[in-house]
Amino acid sequence: MSNIAVVYHSGYGHTAKVAQAVAEGAKADLIAIDAEGNITDAEWSKLDAARAIIFGSPTYMGTVSWQFKKFADTSSKRWFASEWQDKIAAGFTNSHSASGDKLSTLTYMMVFSMQHGMIWTGQTERGPDPTGTDVAKSTDINRVGSFSGLMTQANNESPEVSPPSGDIETAKLFGKRIAEITGKFKP
Amino acid sequence: MSNIAVVYHSGYGHTAKVAQAVAEGAKADLIAIDAEGNITDAEWSKLDAARAIIFGSPTYMGTVSWQFKKFADTSSKRWFASEWQDKIAAGFTNSHSASGDKLSTLTYMMVFSMQHGMIWTGQTERGPDPTGTDVAKSTDINRVGSFSGLMTQANNESPEVSPPSGDIETAKLFGKRIAEITGKFKP
Amino acid sequence: MSNIAVVYHSGYGHTAKVAQAVAEGAKADLIAIDAEGNITDAEWSKLDAARAIIFGSPTYMGTVSWQFKKFADTSSKRWFASEWQDKIAAGFTNSHSASGDKLSTLTYMMVFSMQHGMIWTGQTERGPDPTGTDVAKSTDINRVGSFSGLMTQANNESPEVSPPSGDIETAKLFGKRIAEITGKFKP
Amino acid sequence: MSNIAVVYHSGYGHTAKVAQAVAEGAKADLIAIDAEGNITDAEWSKLDAARAIIFGSPTYMGTVSWQFKKFADTSSKRWFASEWQDKIAAGFTNSHSASGDKLSTLTYMMVFSMQHGMIWTGQTERGPDPTGTDVAKSTDINRVGSFSGLMTQANNESPEVSPPSGDIETAKLFGKRIAEITGKFKP
Repeated sequence: MSNIAVVYHSGYGHTAKVAQAVAEGAKADLIAIDAEGNITDAEWSKLDAARAIIFGSPTYMGTVSWQFKKFADTSSKRWFASEWQDKIAAGFTNSHSASGDKLSTLTYMMVFSMQHGMIWTGQTERGPDPTGTDVAKSTDINRVGSFSGLMTQANNESPEVSPPSGDIETAKLFGKRIAEITGKFKP
Repeated sequence: MSNIAVVYHSGYGHTAKVAQAVAEGAKADLIAIDAEGNITDAEWSKLDAARAIIFGSPTYMGTVSWQFKKFADTSSKRWFASEWQDKIAAGFTNSHSASGDKLSTLTYMMVFSMQHGMIWTGQTERGPDPTGTDVAKSTDINRVGSFSGLMTQANNESPEVSPPSGDIETAKLFGKRIAEITGKFKP
Repeated sequence: MSNIAVVYHSGYGHTAKVAQAVAEGAKADLIAIDAEGNITDAEWSKLDAARAIIFGSPTYMGTVSWQFKKFADTSSKRWFASEWQDKIAAGFTNSHSASGDKLSTLTYMMVFSMQHGMIWTGQTERGPDPTGTDVAKSTDINRVGSFSGLMTQANNESPEVSPPSGDIETAKLFGKRIAEITGKFKP
Repeated sequence: MSNIAVVYHSGYGHTAKVAQAVAEGAKADLIAIDAEGNITDAEWSKLDAARAIIFGSPTYMGTVSWQFKKFADTSSKRWFASEWQDKIAAGFTNSHSASGDKLSTLTYMMVFSMQHGMIWTGQTERGPDPTGTDVAKSTDINRVGSFSGLMTQANNESPEVSPPSGDIETAKLFGKRIAEITGKFKP
């Protein structure tokens, strides 16, 4: 069992695909929040034992999905006794447009992590630098240019196609980064 | 039927008490989101017909409750066809501490309203100006000093006691303000 | 003289180019904040007389430039007497990456406008819907997918080249939208 | 020389008073941003060498003062080469009202720190729990209830009087906390 957990909600499979890449990069355990906003008691225990938790959610109507929020509200039991204090935290989100309101989601995840007294780490891969009137390519690393966490973008296509390869590679690098930071922090 | 609707979720009755005061000030219809995050079809129709919608939620774990978020996610059906565009929007939130993360909740409500193409109006009552080492009193108007919307604060007491009279009076003035702005806007 | 003013800071000319397009769409007067964060007394008077103010700034290090912030801090003289209350407000920002932290800038502009008791209007053009692994094109309207205000993206190129045509067209439509909303509001 | 630095701007002395208490708690060096938004080259070097940087600013017109923002913009030279990556970061802010828009300031400081690839730590002291219609007292720890960083509140009084003793004690505990976290992180 890893000491890092990725806990995420995915509505249509795009965020799940990103979560898998993040978990691969971080060598983390994956926990999926279900369609009713629940995880099992064993999964709560895994989060309690983890030294780092990486949060993932689509951006729906301006912030995390209601299922992710239900998970966050349920975590208030841990909040009362500061049980997650000093854990490393990080976050990622996917949506249909390049910017959308994904920063609203990441900002919320930071505020949520601060309620728990966690320690937040972001995204450190530099974005692309296109020339002329070119735009960032689907193979670029950190192509939307995010700092507070990982942002990916998916078209209305199957998760097999979208988010594209650049985003998936960015997700692996992001997971790797969080694992490195976790390793440097002695609780 | 009023052309203004207050739609809110309340977990323990404090936000409901504020919602009633806002609705009284705005002469608005009250719609309560239930414990499962739902409202009725008739209530959705009322929102569709309203010229102004005032959103209310407690601040739980850093933003709106999951029940409010489920309501927001369900409103995506209206979002696809821009059905709520140009409606007046405003928001309020209650939490246990003076500041807490209530601004995170109001900021989210603004971002959510902008997704719908609504027009956001805030809180214009000036806060108190205590002297020496005095603190704002429970009878003061806008005692926590909020601008983006209405903020109230409740102790762990029955809604009959808390939030206190100053907050309830502020809520009435806030509702009145939203009604005035709505009256000035010709759709 | 128009009853709408665009007041903006631009560091390298990209935001100035966007400001001109917004002003063209809104038939607004243009006011440039200088390199020291100042505007003239006559320009302050123009803002005082306007029925709508559209704010513009690059996103530097996570929010508005310091020059824009100096303008905002100087506006506190108007704030004390609520002189800008009930004016229509809107905002735009440009940065080097698709998302970057542009939403942080727009969120700040909303919070700032709410301090003044202004009424905030956002961006209502729908973004593009690419298929397969395609990305939004430089000619698309609202290609980064923004709601709370106007977002544009510029490469490290001359303002003659970047932001590209889609962003400039979006800026004109944004200005037009703010003018329409202003026309519907009777102060 | 400490490996922790507190860098802050203060307009009227209230934030300076808080900065001194934070620095005392963290055994940190104090760096004051001047009225033109500048610090000396030697002070930049001290920040470059620090393992943790604690940012401080009043909340003016909805976020950090323009002088703090000028400092942040100037730090972009460090940003280009990721020179501050993996430093510990934290922040504090003071304003005239209990809530005000202080969370906007702290959220900005988080976004700013994430641009630099820093690691953010918040406030972990629990707030007060008044009963009946009582309000938090000026001697309470974390009396406004902040999580993302330190919030203090000052009346329009001399810094000798305000912010009051509870806020100053909270500032010392906050500094101590940041020092402890810094000690646990091996760069």
